[in-house]
Amino acid sequence: MAISRPLASPLSTDLYELNMVQAYLDLGETGDATFEFFVRKLPERRGFLMAAGLETALTYLETLRFDNDDIAWLKSTGRFRPNLIDYLAGFRFSGDVHAMPEGTVFFPNEPILRVTAPLPQAQLVESLIINIMHFQTLIASKAVRMVLAANGKALADFGLRSAHGAEAGLLSARASYIAGFGGAANVEAARHFGIPAVGTMAHSFVQIHDNEATAFEHYARARPDGVTLLIDTFDTEAGARKVVELTPKLKRDGIAIRAVRIDSGDLVAMARKVRGILDAGGLKDTTIVVSGGVDEDFIATALGAGAPIDAFGVGASLDASSDVPVLECAYKLQEYRGKPRRKLSEGKVTWPGRKQVWRDTAADGTMRGDVLTIDGDAQPGVPLIAPVMKAGARVGGAPSLADIRARAAEQLKRLPDRLQRLEPNAPYPVAISAALEDLARTTGR
Amino acid sequence: MAISRPLASPLSTDLYELNMVQAYLDLGETGDATFEFFVRKLPERRGFLMAAGLETALTYLETLRFDNDDIAWLKSTGRFRPNLIDYLAGFRFSGDVHAMPEGTVFFPNEPILRVTAPLPQAQLVESLIINIMHFQTLIASKAVRMVLAANGKALADFGLRSAHGAEAGLLSARASYIAGFGGAANVEAARHFGIPAVGTMAHSFVQIHDNEATAFEHYARARPDGVTLLIDTFDTEAGARKVVELTPKLKRDGIAIRAVRIDSGDLVAMARKVRGILDAGGLKDTTIVVSGGVDEDFIATALGAGAPIDAFGVGASLDASSDVPVLECAYKLQEYRGKPRRKLSEGKVTWPGRKQVWRDTAADGTMRGDVLTIDGDAQPGVPLIAPVMKAGARVGGAPSLADIRARAAEQLKRLPDRLQRLEPNAPYPVAISAALEDLARTTGR
Repeated sequence: MAISRPLASPLSTDLYELNMVQAYLDLGETGDATFEFFVRKLPERRGFLMAAGLETALTYLETLRFDNDDIAWLKSTGRFRPNLIDYLAGFRFSGDVHAMPEGTVFFPNEPILRVTAPLPQAQLVESLIINIMHFQTLIASKAVRMVLAANGKALADFGLRSAHGAEAGLLSARASYIAGFGGAANVEAARHFGIPAVGTMAHSFVQIHDNEATAFEHYARARPDGVTLLIDTFDTEAGARKVVELTPKLKRDGIAIRAVRIDSGDLVAMARKVRGILDAGGLKDTTIVVSGGVDEDFIATALGAGAPIDAFGVGASLDASSDVPVLECAYKLQEYRGKPRRKLSEGKVTWPGRKQVWRDTAADGTMRGDVLTIDGDAQPGVPLIAPVMKAGARVGGAPSLADIRARAAEQLKRLPDRLQRLEPNAPYPVAISAALEDLARTTGR
Repeated sequence: MAISRPLASPLSTDLYELNMVQAYLDLGETGDATFEFFVRKLPERRGFLMAAGLETALTYLETLRFDNDDIAWLKSTGRFRPNLIDYLAGFRFSGDVHAMPEGTVFFPNEPILRVTAPLPQAQLVESLIINIMHFQTLIASKAVRMVLAANGKALADFGLRSAHGAEAGLLSARASYIAGFGGAANVEAARHFGIPAVGTMAHSFVQIHDNEATAFEHYARARPDGVTLLIDTFDTEAGARKVVELTPKLKRDGIAIRAVRIDSGDLVAMARKVRGILDAGGLKDTTIVVSGGVDEDFIATALGAGAPIDAFGVGASLDASSDVPVLECAYKLQEYRGKPRRKLSEGKVTWPGRKQVWRDTAADGTMRGDVLTIDGDAQPGVPLIAPVMKAGARVGGAPSLADIRARAAEQLKRLPDRLQRLEPNAPYPVAISAALEDLARTTGR
């Protein structure tokens, strides 16, 4: 199996999209449709969400093509008629996209992406648009909690191994970097996105040596720039003492031990003991990195208790967003041929029409409240949704990852105090405008 | 961003693997190393796990290459010395792999994959071996719970949109099919793995019509083979009545409505009402498919209550394994240059050496107990771990997905009754052999 193939594949979609496109072509239903992507509700313990994934989604729309192999396979299934086969063979996304910029704080029912395109196009891309927008938004929204808890301490994504596939590992590095992480262990994230790569050594490195001190020295000499030693393979305190003993010898060769890493046991208690050993040994500048089961609650508790931890490596809790591994998302038809549409399914009612979100802020920039309304209905504050693709081509250039990350940081500064806590205590107000209420009343059957 | 690129990339690895390989090459530490992949403990509510991902992992090992672009980028970082660059440019995995077949039921601390290769090779592949084996094992172990709960009713993977990336969606379809699902909505899963594709229509199809009955008729005529109609866009019971009314008209043209799908509301209560409407209308052969929030608990509860549900479409709870989105896994050095190795980190002690798992069964085939021991120490029952790759080449051919699925089904028949329940009540016995206890006692630093 060529691991690369499926993601490039335009067949990464649900069969019902192809069924519907077949029917739309048969029926001549190719008028302009507007779909919006939004999250239905906040998961437990989240006070807000952070939008991410837009650039990946736009790239998907720009590059979606069915090649000869794809077409041959579709024909071979015998499921589809020639009009659909021809349509897919010539497929180019030619629609418009409006969206909130990546890194924007948002709330349930606020669309963060809107696609307006001929119905078969807008329908065909549903499965992957949700897949892309959901996952990066999920991870950014988790990572930002760690960023708030860490209060300036360094964070790195160590989670590739626990991510749901290699793609998930890569996109997790991207989404967490947007949210404020400082780097990732994933080398492909460095190459692909320019995210700072971080990494030390594994227990196996110590284990292949008959002597831990020898392992430390070997590692330091092999990787002399920014040496970080993993000290918990056998006995963490003994490991810290070996680091102290080794220092003068390495110093003669110009090598400094920048940090030690602890990956097991009571990380807070052990960090204190190790700090004591390092300080007593004159290694006041050697920092302490912890990893292994780290999440935002651990970070908040450890720093709240004054643990001398300088950096956190975060794995499964980040890359799988382990407490909330799924957001309830939707990509819903809101308008067709200029007429608003609405779904009334029990518990899943949607707001019809093309919408805009306006955000009001206090004089110091703090967010005060949002209004969800129909496009063109001005409200206090600023509108959050802007055109990003017109007739299949991007509007302006793609923002750099650094720009997106800066926007996210600026958004966090505007969060009301109560949303900066891990346990939100009062919901942020999102009002529905009178115009949207009116539209909803008159839409549907 | 070329979405396909990162997965093909050999740089989908953690920086520390490259750091260690650099050090190993510098030190001449290229002796044979044995690493084993295992799960540390059962997550809450799981009585057993099901191995999956091996074929993907073997393909990764067979095809891992660093191309000119990869090498150029690695050079450009300035982090690595020429000996590492040359080593990676010529990289070919030449080691041996032993494993449990995919679809095998297994327990914590039992290795399901063992790599024996020159140390730099065995180390370099760590991150992706864990990433691959973890995810598919996670999903197969979740899917099998739904298979047990469904007790023969049809199951399909509808979760691409909620999966953590397109790759996760594809691999989830594979792992759930192995576990006994009947198909997946993901079209790429049909093309790539030959998994039966299933799919109906979305609410948007109904919404673009001014009249739900017209939408049903249009869909049935466009997709006349195995028509499934989604009936909950506005009012589910009214939707069911429209299906009944439409039937004679379609029948005249030889079109039958095979199934209806309900995606919202109280699915059990609604299935009963819809069954009543369909039966009263003479549609006794039209089946009921439900989706939306389905998990193994819902399946068990619904079928336990006698709900007239014929098939379940499962989304987020499957593709993100939402109650347990991560298994605690490890890929640990167990032997180097013929000498057993052991990690003693607090709470993370491992069993040293190359190991084998023997499984004893009753006369009727029911699993009775496992013994974890060192390789070559025969125990009652049959050994589960066998050679699958020798000097970088597969031993025998790759089993077909159908064969793997059949093995999984056969394994489920051998499960003790208590492990077939969603809440396991007595643990399955996994004994440690005297030989392994002895080895552990004498292995340390």
